[in-house]
Amino acid sequence: MQKSELIVLKIGGKIVDEDNLLGKVLEDFSAWNVPKILVHGGGKIATEIGHRLGIEAKMHNGRRITDQPTLQVVTMVYGGLINKAIVAKLQSLGIQALGVTGADLDIIRAQKRSPQPIDFGFVGDITCINVPILQKLLEWKITPVFAPLTHDGKGNLFNTNADTIAQEVAVALSQYYEVKLIYSFEKKGVLSNPNDEESYIRFINTASYKQLLSSGIISGGMIPKMENAFEALKRGIASVMIVQADYLKSVREEEFIGTKITL
Amino acid sequence: MQKSELIVLKIGGKIVDEDNLLGKVLEDFSAWNVPKILVHGGGKIATEIGHRLGIEAKMHNGRRITDQPTLQVVTMVYGGLINKAIVAKLQSLGIQALGVTGADLDIIRAQKRSPQPIDFGFVGDITCINVPILQKLLEWKITPVFAPLTHDGKGNLFNTNADTIAQEVAVALSQYYEVKLIYSFEKKGVLSNPNDEESYIRFINTASYKQLLSSGIISGGMIPKMENAFEALKRGIASVMIVQADYLKSVREEEFIGTKITL
Repeated sequence: MQKSELIVLKIGGKIVDEDNLLGKVLEDFSAWNVPKILVHGGGKIATEIGHRLGIEAKMHNGRRITDQPTLQVVTMVYGGLINKAIVAKLQSLGIQALGVTGADLDIIRAQKRSPQPIDFGFVGDITCINVPILQKLLEWKITPVFAPLTHDGKGNLFNTNADTIAQEVAVALSQYYEVKLIYSFEKKGVLSNPNDEESYIRFINTASYKQLLSSGIISGGMIPKMENAFEALKRGIASVMIVQADYLKSVREEEFIGTKITL
Repeated sequence: MQKSELIVLKIGGKIVDEDNLLGKVLEDFSAWNVPKILVHGGGKIATEIGHRLGIEAKMHNGRRITDQPTLQVVTMVYGGLINKAIVAKLQSLGIQALGVTGADLDIIRAQKRSPQPIDFGFVGDITCINVPILQKLLEWKITPVFAPLTHDGKGNLFNTNADTIAQEVAVALSQYYEVKLIYSFEKKGVLSNPNDEESYIRFINTASYKQLLSSGIISGGMIPKMENAFEALKRGIASVMIVQADYLKSVREEEFIGTKITL
């Protein structure tokens, strides 16, 4: 039996910070007439609210260290402020949205990351995705909207990277759906010339990736992103796309603007 | 066909503010082996977080005036901080909890309260409860946990009194369930002697209420609470109980400690 299509869209950074851009992205998301899931990050709002509360962000290699006060801030900002604004907006667009954290309906369990070598505090590494409940929600035409929070089933909430949540949810559902995982990106896609926004590479597969690597076109911070994408593809996802917010509307068209990665 | 039992429990104030008390209340709630719904208020946490953010609570007759910054605070605190802590705790107790606002799954629609005579700002008066989706959740053995927020279907969130949410949800479901609405209360129940905690009146009905009113035993702030309870009963709820947090465990026993109000 052919699997039906499912889109998992991860948004973060500027999209979450800017109301107008967020509104436009949610309109494009709403227009995709297929089962879909949204995963949002936190942008700068958590840092700003934390600052106003006297809780300064502590980072290590670009990742937030989540002590107890920071966990409270991200629970408020991710799970409340951002998540519910998105849900209310999607509802106004006719989408039956349901805002969730991993704790709601026990959808995503995680374990606290080991404090060695770096103690990230209340950061959870995903151990289990509740596929049956997600299937039920999707069958009911409900659109889950994930805040990047998980739980351990013992009453503890954790901060969990939104990219990772998107990927793990996408992989877990790929048994039953043809999953297209889309990451919003600051550029138009993977660029063959970093100074030319129009040089985005529309398709990358395993073979062309090797060439792009050896020629040095893909380098630096792009390498782990690509490695993650290929790992997700090997685990069953149909395609991974990297798309600028302004061009999300095009992703289901043949002439899309962005980079589509397949095995 | 006999309707099956459904419990709607509203908690607020001290219960939400004190972790230990909240934990105990959630344990008692979890032990009720029937379909159930939890509605929580905000306690002092929203006021305290708002204060730390430089947003002072403005009250009118004990009700919060919700300007835009205050709406952000209550969305964070009610919808995120408090709601998700309760959900994670209930999950640890084996309850399939789902934290929601009125916007999630379009469960509760409201309209912005008229600015006349008092402009309460972003406060919503309930216009519609989505009974079919609530029935589905309950059939699935899901326990909805409501934060006191609603939406208008146009993308706007509103602050809505938690007591009112509990009552309206209870009334809406009374077509299909024998609904027992329970309010946690600071005293052991309605007291016949305000100086004697042990003088709680176990049963009040329409006839005895009239006597309690005319004898002056029920007076002051207790009158609107009682009027609301009788209104809810007339609209189909089976019983309304007023119970102290410490005695929630007893409410399904014959020798319960608290006040049970029926028509």
